[in-house]
Amino acid sequence: RIALPVFASDALSSVAYAPDEIFLTLSLAGITALTVSPWVGGAVALVMLVVVASYRQNVRAYTSGGGDYEVAKVNLGRQAGITVASALLVDYVLTVAVSISQASHYASTAIPALRGYETFIAVFLVLVITAANLRGVRESGRAFAVPTYIFIIAVIGMVIWGFIRIVSGSRLEAASAAYHVAPHAGWETGLMGLAGAFLVMRAFSSGCAALTGVEAIANGVPAFRKPKSKNAATTLLILGAIGISMLMGIMFLAGAVKLHFVTNPARQLLTAGGTPVGHDYVQEPVIGQLARAVFSNFTPAFYLVAVVTGVILVLAANTAFSGFPGLASILARDGFLPRQLNTRGDRLAFSNGILTLAVAAIVLISVFHADTTRLIQLYIIGVFVSFTVGQFGMVKHWTRELRLLTDKKKRARVMRSRLINLTGLILTGIVLVVVLITKFLLGAWIAIVAMIVLYLMMTGIHRHYARISEELEPVGDDDSRLLPSNVHAIVLVSKVHKPTLRALAYARATRPTILEALTVSVDDEEARSLQSAWDDQDLPVPLTVIASPYREITRPIIQYVRRIRRESPRDVIVIYIPEYVVGHWWEHMLHNQTALRLKSRLLFATGVMVANVPWRLQSSWRAVDSRNYAEEKTREWK
Amino acid sequence: RIALPVFASDALSSVAYAPDEIFLTLSLAGITALTVSPWVGGAVALVMLVVVASYRQNVRAYTSGGGDYEVAKVNLGRQAGITVASALLVDYVLTVAVSISQASHYASTAIPALRGYETFIAVFLVLVITAANLRGVRESGRAFAVPTYIFIIAVIGMVIWGFIRIVSGSRLEAASAAYHVAPHAGWETGLMGLAGAFLVMRAFSSGCAALTGVEAIANGVPAFRKPKSKNAATTLLILGAIGISMLMGIMFLAGAVKLHFVTNPARQLLTAGGTPVGHDYVQEPVIGQLARAVFSNFTPAFYLVAVVTGVILVLAANTAFSGFPGLASILARDGFLPRQLNTRGDRLAFSNGILTLAVAAIVLISVFHADTTRLIQLYIIGVFVSFTVGQFGMVKHWTRELRLLTDKKKRARVMRSRLINLTGLILTGIVLVVVLITKFLLGAWIAIVAMIVLYLMMTGIHRHYARISEELEPVGDDDSRLLPSNVHAIVLVSKVHKPTLRALAYARATRPTILEALTVSVDDEEARSLQSAWDDQDLPVPLTVIASPYREITRPIIQYVRRIRRESPRDVIVIYIPEYVVGHWWEHMLHNQTALRLKSRLLFATGVMVANVPWRLQSSWRAVDSRNYAEEKTREWK
Ligand SMILES: [K+]
Ligand SMILES: [K+]
Ligand SMILES: [K+]
Ligand SMILES: [K+]
Ligand SMILES: [K+]
Ligand SMILES: [K+]
Repeated sequence: RIALPVFASDALSSVAYAPDEIFLTLSLAGITALTVSPWVGGAVALVMLVVVASYRQNVRAYTSGGGDYEVAKVNLGRQAGITVASALLVDYVLTVAVSISQASHYASTAIPALRGYETFIAVFLVLVITAANLRGVRESGRAFAVPTYIFIIAVIGMVIWGFIRIVSGSRLEAASAAYHVAPHAGWETGLMGLAGAFLVMRAFSSGCAALTGVEAIANGVPAFRKPKSKNAATTLLILGAIGISMLMGIMFLAGAVKLHFVTNPARQLLTAGGTPVGHDYVQEPVIGQLARAVFSNFTPAFYLVAVVTGVILVLAANTAFSGFPGLASILARDGFLPRQLNTRGDRLAFSNGILTLAVAAIVLISVFHADTTRLIQLYIIGVFVSFTVGQFGMVKHWTRELRLLTDKKKRARVMRSRLINLTGLILTGIVLVVVLITKFLLGAWIAIVAMIVLYLMMTGIHRHYARISEELEPVGDDDSRLLPSNVHAIVLVSKVHKPTLRALAYARATRPTILEALTVSVDDEEARSLQSAWDDQDLPVPLTVIASPYREITRPIIQYVRRIRRESPRDVIVIYIPEYVVGHWWEHMLHNQTALRLKSRLLFATGVMVANVPWRLQSSWRAVDSRNYAEEKTREWK
Repeated sequence: RIALPVFASDALSSVAYAPDEIFLTLSLAGITALTVSPWVGGAVALVMLVVVASYRQNVRAYTSGGGDYEVAKVNLGRQAGITVASALLVDYVLTVAVSISQASHYASTAIPALRGYETFIAVFLVLVITAANLRGVRESGRAFAVPTYIFIIAVIGMVIWGFIRIVSGSRLEAASAAYHVAPHAGWETGLMGLAGAFLVMRAFSSGCAALTGVEAIANGVPAFRKPKSKNAATTLLILGAIGISMLMGIMFLAGAVKLHFVTNPARQLLTAGGTPVGHDYVQEPVIGQLARAVFSNFTPAFYLVAVVTGVILVLAANTAFSGFPGLASILARDGFLPRQLNTRGDRLAFSNGILTLAVAAIVLISVFHADTTRLIQLYIIGVFVSFTVGQFGMVKHWTRELRLLTDKKKRARVMRSRLINLTGLILTGIVLVVVLITKFLLGAWIAIVAMIVLYLMMTGIHRHYARISEELEPVGDDDSRLLPSNVHAIVLVSKVHKPTLRALAYARATRPTILEALTVSVDDEEARSLQSAWDDQDLPVPLTVIASPYREITRPIIQYVRRIRRESPRDVIVIYIPEYVVGHWWEHMLHNQTALRLKSRLLFATGVMVANVPWRLQSSWRAVDSRNYAEEKTREWK
């Protein structure tokens, strides 16, 4: 039951922007929203009903947490899987971008002083959520529960109270009710003809933004309490019921209070005299306008609705910050993303995912100036690609199940499930086509390009891993098992100091066949003083000095090693490099740089391995003492 | 003789902005430049004469290429040395910023279409020079010679031709001669009183920009042919003579043609009717205006002068691109900058210097919108700090010499040298004070802050190296020489593939006391399949499996190593890590990440060393084949 509020924020917060989009699109034609909008809302609710029913089948069959990705991969193969994965990754980014952009508009509804700074606020909110998630604040069901329940109660309460007031005779009107709506340029013909039908379809597909968030539940089944499938299915049912109620309630109430919500209020809203309201007019989001109208006699309730709506949108964005790295981890496990992302318990891998998501969301918010309407065009496409392919996978799943089943009762149940998913497939497929037709030029193409890029990237990574894996497969007679005959150890010396002495001691301890110390001399005098310091130490190992008139360090060593390698190709050469361990990154920049470059060059040598002998400087102990994360290291090594 | 053109560009190009600054400053008071400017120019020429004479002593005494830094460090100690070094580093950055900014103004003088895009042009030019220097285009004397000689001939020719025309009766007038000059706000009192004296001093210190570039010759003695000192001294003399001739020639010619050059032409230049010329008026640089006037009957010569002046400014900026990394290398040798910068023959170290210089110059150009006048306020201060401290060092140098000399004739020569440097010290010291007083608030403070930051940074780095060096000094009974009793080798296994088999073979070749293979299991099934693959290979080494229920990799290994270390503290542990060598950076991102993190954690372990066993993948061979720099590696390792 705890999982409900966590996922509820993503799914239910959609009512904070979906109705707005329906009104806004229909108003393009200049008609008041009253006449057609309930029908459009009803159509959206119908799709939502079917999708919820379909996903109840999904979560019962697939509980591992990959959601539609898992379903598509298992039933339709790798390519379908990557397609859905691309769609879902885009979906997460847009969940953040859309939710936070809309949250910033609710912020400026509650606090008018913030008006005009929506982009700034949105970026700031993303940064806050990012920081919180980087520090490891995981969503706890309890913390989410309070605002979620308040949101549900507030919105449904507002709708009920509004109708009570209307029925009891109050003249309830939205602030925008006083205006007429002028058609937007190019839509003067109203809803007549093909263009009109197109506009209604566009309004419908915009309204389908109300469904976003349902897919997240299927990805999140592992987060539910046991029995996971059952709880997930129940949650879906409850959320579906609440979501549809809220959506339809808002649609009808908006009609009742004659609310207007248009694309370009400065020009489209006309006063009684027929003049446009101009740029000073501020158009608040739908729920904001409704709350103002319904609670016109009790302002605190208006603020409660505005604030809790903003909070729920922020929580919705927050869910993506665990969903995105989680999906990335699953994709990494399957070899579609860099493998190091597949370490679930590992903070660093999660951090990479969180930062990627944050950067992508901030870029979108900045480019689109936190314009929710434009961002939603990108949002819906990803969600419906995932819906459609996922349902197709489920239909295949049930068909395969049917082949194995003989029991009549079980077969009937599977047949029923298949029918539900088939209905889902047909309906979401139709919506997908509608969305593609009506939204492509409005911005959906950006999301499609992003998906294609992700698809190609994941395919490429998978192919790379497969090729490498094949290349590395041991075959009986390859030379990977070849045992070198002798070990030739070389200790690199730049100065005669403790790290060098330790490296020498360690090298001696391994009892190599040949052991020598090697230094590069760029300056005769330095070389002489080094040699004499070496002799002073009375070491049982000879020091070889290579002269480097051109002051190079790396190349002479490489050439020296190459010569040894040529002379005794069956030996293995071990190069001991003393390395300083310091406490700060800036100290690190002051040391080890030559060693670092040498090592990267030596990697290209076959038959040569590099042994790093670390020497911890005091600053590394001190730094470790003073830092939190490193404290652990102290404990480990003291 | 080849070195002359190289350094000439820096020193002589100063006449492309120094006269402008004198006129511009004096015009603040509303007077025409005619009356006072020759005196100011003469004073600048006098300082130049003395400074050149002084530096002729410097280059004779110090030939190693550190210039004033070397002189200050040897004679006045480390702190003075770092002070001069900070000043010179700032000087190089401003040489680029000022020269390129002014070059961009000459570009828009020659091509009016470029007007208004000066900042953009300047940044672009810096990028081009940077790219050229990164690719290793070193200044060859010959390539520099042509534009330098053309520049000298063009400017001196222009001056002579101008006076010939005037003497022969032509009415030569600058385009700006027709206007009156109105005083700038706040300077209505003209040159009377204290404010007037202050303004003349300010004009003089601006004019001292003509001296910038002289210091670069002292830094560049090693670039001269033998006998280096003598050639450098001769070059200084010649450059001094040419520079003073050009400067005074320009000053007098400008007076003769009644040239006006003001801070704010739109308001300060008045037409005959007394109205300001307004924002459409374009004020060309002084040499540009002169060339237009002198070659009014022969336009190609005007273009030649404008273009060659721009080219010489670009070449001046270019000299800083070898001077800056060179000085950085010397500072690194002395332990004031990260030691890895001290690899003269090494491209990478040079690249770091080049990039640092380019970024700093681009920042300055962008912040100051390529405004030469404002940038010069920052420029002069660094040059004169270096002049003054350098001369002080030279006076000390000669005094010490005197103490050792008994021969009368030699003493007389040293006394003479000391007198010259003392004169230089007094004069540059006075100029430095004047510059500080007149320029501090105009922007010199920025250069001073930059110098202080550099000073503190270099002091800090030096202290760090000294502390580390002391800490690492071997003392008879420390444990750096302790010979471990046993070698415990651990081969890390993630899969049973060729790199693992090779790591195992190498580890076996070193015949450790104990040898084991180690893997971390995050998944039971994976672990079982790994174990069976291991058994299939029939390897004579046991595989230890550590279970990691939280899917961590690094920590369980660290804990395992820690336990071994506790049990046998006198052993050394060698951890063999198979590493892939790939061809592209993006491939690298797909591999070795876990190994990389593990290694950085293991560095903190005493008694543990990490041996990297590289395995070259085919892509690394292919990449090496296709890339230039890596071709070398192929040759080395094939
Ligand atoms: K929803
Ligand atoms: K979502
Ligand atoms: K949503
Ligand atoms: K000069
Ligand atoms: K310079
Ligand atoms: K200069």
